[in-house]
Amino acid sequence: MYMYKELVIPQRTIMTPGPAEAEPRVLRIMGAPILGQYDPNFLQIMDETMELTRYIFQTENHQAFPVDGTARAGIEAVISSIIEPNDKVYIPIFGRFGHLMTELSRRAGGDVYTTEIEWGKTYEFEDLKNEIIKVNPKVVAVVHGETSTGRMQSLEELGKFCRENDILLVVDAVATLTGTEFKTDDWNIDAVITGTQKCLSVPTGMAPLTYNERVEKILSERKKIEQGLQIDSYNDRMISSNYLDLSQIQEYWSPTRLNHHTESTSMLYALREGLRIIKEEGLEARIARHALNEKALVAGIEAMGLHIFGDKVNKLPTVTCVYVPEGIKEDEIRKRMIEDFGVEIAAAFGSLSGKIWRIGSMGYSSRKENILKVLSALETSLIRNGAIVNRGEALQAALDVYEEKR
Amino acid sequence: MYMYKELVIPQRTIMTPGPAEAEPRVLRIMGAPILGQYDPNFLQIMDETMELTRYIFQTENHQAFPVDGTARAGIEAVISSIIEPNDKVYIPIFGRFGHLMTELSRRAGGDVYTTEIEWGKTYEFEDLKNEIIKVNPKVVAVVHGETSTGRMQSLEELGKFCRENDILLVVDAVATLTGTEFKTDDWNIDAVITGTQKCLSVPTGMAPLTYNERVEKILSERKKIEQGLQIDSYNDRMISSNYLDLSQIQEYWSPTRLNHHTESTSMLYALREGLRIIKEEGLEARIARHALNEKALVAGIEAMGLHIFGDKVNKLPTVTCVYVPEGIKEDEIRKRMIEDFGVEIAAAFGSLSGKIWRIGSMGYSSRKENILKVLSALETSLIRNGAIVNRGEALQAALDVYEEKR
Repeated sequence: MYMYKELVIPQRTIMTPGPAEAEPRVLRIMGAPILGQYDPNFLQIMDETMELTRYIFQTENHQAFPVDGTARAGIEAVISSIIEPNDKVYIPIFGRFGHLMTELSRRAGGDVYTTEIEWGKTYEFEDLKNEIIKVNPKVVAVVHGETSTGRMQSLEELGKFCRENDILLVVDAVATLTGTEFKTDDWNIDAVITGTQKCLSVPTGMAPLTYNERVEKILSERKKIEQGLQIDSYNDRMISSNYLDLSQIQEYWSPTRLNHHTESTSMLYALREGLRIIKEEGLEARIARHALNEKALVAGIEAMGLHIFGDKVNKLPTVTCVYVPEGIKEDEIRKRMIEDFGVEIAAAFGSLSGKIWRIGSMGYSSRKENILKVLSALETSLIRNGAIVNRGEALQAALDVYEEKR
Repeated sequence: MYMYKELVIPQRTIMTPGPAEAEPRVLRIMGAPILGQYDPNFLQIMDETMELTRYIFQTENHQAFPVDGTARAGIEAVISSIIEPNDKVYIPIFGRFGHLMTELSRRAGGDVYTTEIEWGKTYEFEDLKNEIIKVNPKVVAVVHGETSTGRMQSLEELGKFCRENDILLVVDAVATLTGTEFKTDDWNIDAVITGTQKCLSVPTGMAPLTYNERVEKILSERKKIEQGLQIDSYNDRMISSNYLDLSQIQEYWSPTRLNHHTESTSMLYALREGLRIIKEEGLEARIARHALNEKALVAGIEAMGLHIFGDKVNKLPTVTCVYVPEGIKEDEIRKRMIEDFGVEIAAAFGSLSGKIWRIGSMGYSSRKENILKVLSALETSLIRNGAIVNRGEALQAALDVYEEKR
């Protein structure tokens, strides 16, 4: 009579640029029972989550909380809450997610000016500076780590310049936070967003973010409490979304506890626990772990005779892009890797589609056994599909890295 | 050195109008490992979820999937995807969540006409009909179950009339779906939204919804694929949100698998499992269970000597509103109930604040042991705080209902 059975989920080794594998202790806490949204225990979890969120962003900002949605919900919340119709925005694009920021800024009504460089490159500060002087924007929005190209944009000089010129700097740190260095305050970043499903190793579905008083000032000017809670609230500069309206969401995350929505209970347990585990490991140790596993992965891939896409100098430490060898169909390799080994790596977007694979090493997925497994699965699948590789070299090279022999 | 310990969540008996307790089997599946969003196993879960979503909505609509956000994310997605600037909208308000629909429609740029009746009442069809004839709207948006007042609006005649007059009918069924009868197709409802955290007994954080071809037509006219995926897409009627843009989200839930966002992995496991369990129980049996537990709850409350708020004829079966006895501070009773018994009931909003309690009996929370426990905790707390009640009558009356003695 019933067509559906209880769900059975296979165990995968996930080496994509997200979602990464979730921390087992994070998954375990998701089975905990529901608490009401105003239960004192739940309110404490909210407060602890804010404190831990400040830690991962390395910030003293008061505002630091998740939006209930996937990473792009957080990016849209920040962009649509800051950018008003006709506000000038400059977005330097170097991959797919710069286009997303552009899209979001345009939907918010912004007067958006963009530059785009070849996928695989990042910007020199001087070039950004010249564009900013030319455009004179209210907001600069930029991606820190582009998973589409495996590149990372340096932000420190840009942040300093924007602050000196009273320009707001908004950063998408979805692919980088806690996987590599990110200093919100030291780098003068006004608003920054991340996602749970990458280096935090919490399941997809929340977007932790933080912003400073410069952003809060705009929010306070645009604030409109919804009419079900405050009948006479009016603001002709109000944010067009209610769900992603940070001026209201921040009041839900304040002692006011504005009843804006019912917080995602189990996801918040997961986030709080994921952040606690990050604090337990320590940001410095966590970043060093990501770097070590990346080094072993790259050593293995190169020892196999494959080539890494892009310059090493701006490589995103959490995503390694690899050229598909000539004559090999990239999707057949991925299919074999998942079917025979349960190992998942990612295809590419747009102009890079079919040319490179993207291998993630993020959060809980960034560990020795996963690096060895993805190298083994890749090498075996390539040989099986007729590619010429240096047999048996990749894992030795990776082990050399772990044993500090290179 | 580390200020935070592993999370400990107390066991609560949750008898609020949401979040309700989650099904234990649903919580258990959330501990399953992550799957990549394009893993064949995950795609199958997506397809099964669509099929099961059609079942709970009692619809043949093709479009039936969750939005990744809390219930209001789903309501906003539907409203902002359907309503364009200056579209005429009529919203009959009879509680807080009618105001929310109004707020969302106005933020979408709609020319919104509302009526409001005293909290505790619902609309006669003839009155709705007269307003609709007067306003001649493109869209009528209405709440089915108002948790703020514990009232349920009948929809069948309204649906028929709207369809005959080519008006779109959008319904918020967050508080009712699977807890009482709801027939999307038979009632001629064009779009309807629910939340996971009420009668579905899945944690908060997803908003299942469905809509028919009349709505799809509008979406296809407003469709704009984001520029990171399709560089030359342009539409001057595009939806202002990207995250809640149903014209894109429906393509993610189609064989196209448009890479709009990374689906909330663990929440989707939970939803699919929650829906499977609903199908296993059967909608008819589930609705009968909700009715039986409501009957026992009401019998117990009345036997105690307390009074139920509002008319019985339009009572929301999943929420029972109870007058606070004179001289009793409502918050002190709730505080005692949660601290001494671990039982949570809810306060009221707006004009009803301090005057009534709202007791939910939704989903997994709608079961005999919970009904007996909430009655016991309420009676004991009232006596402890000096109220005059009929001692020992409430639980006997409830048991009479369960034993079919009344």
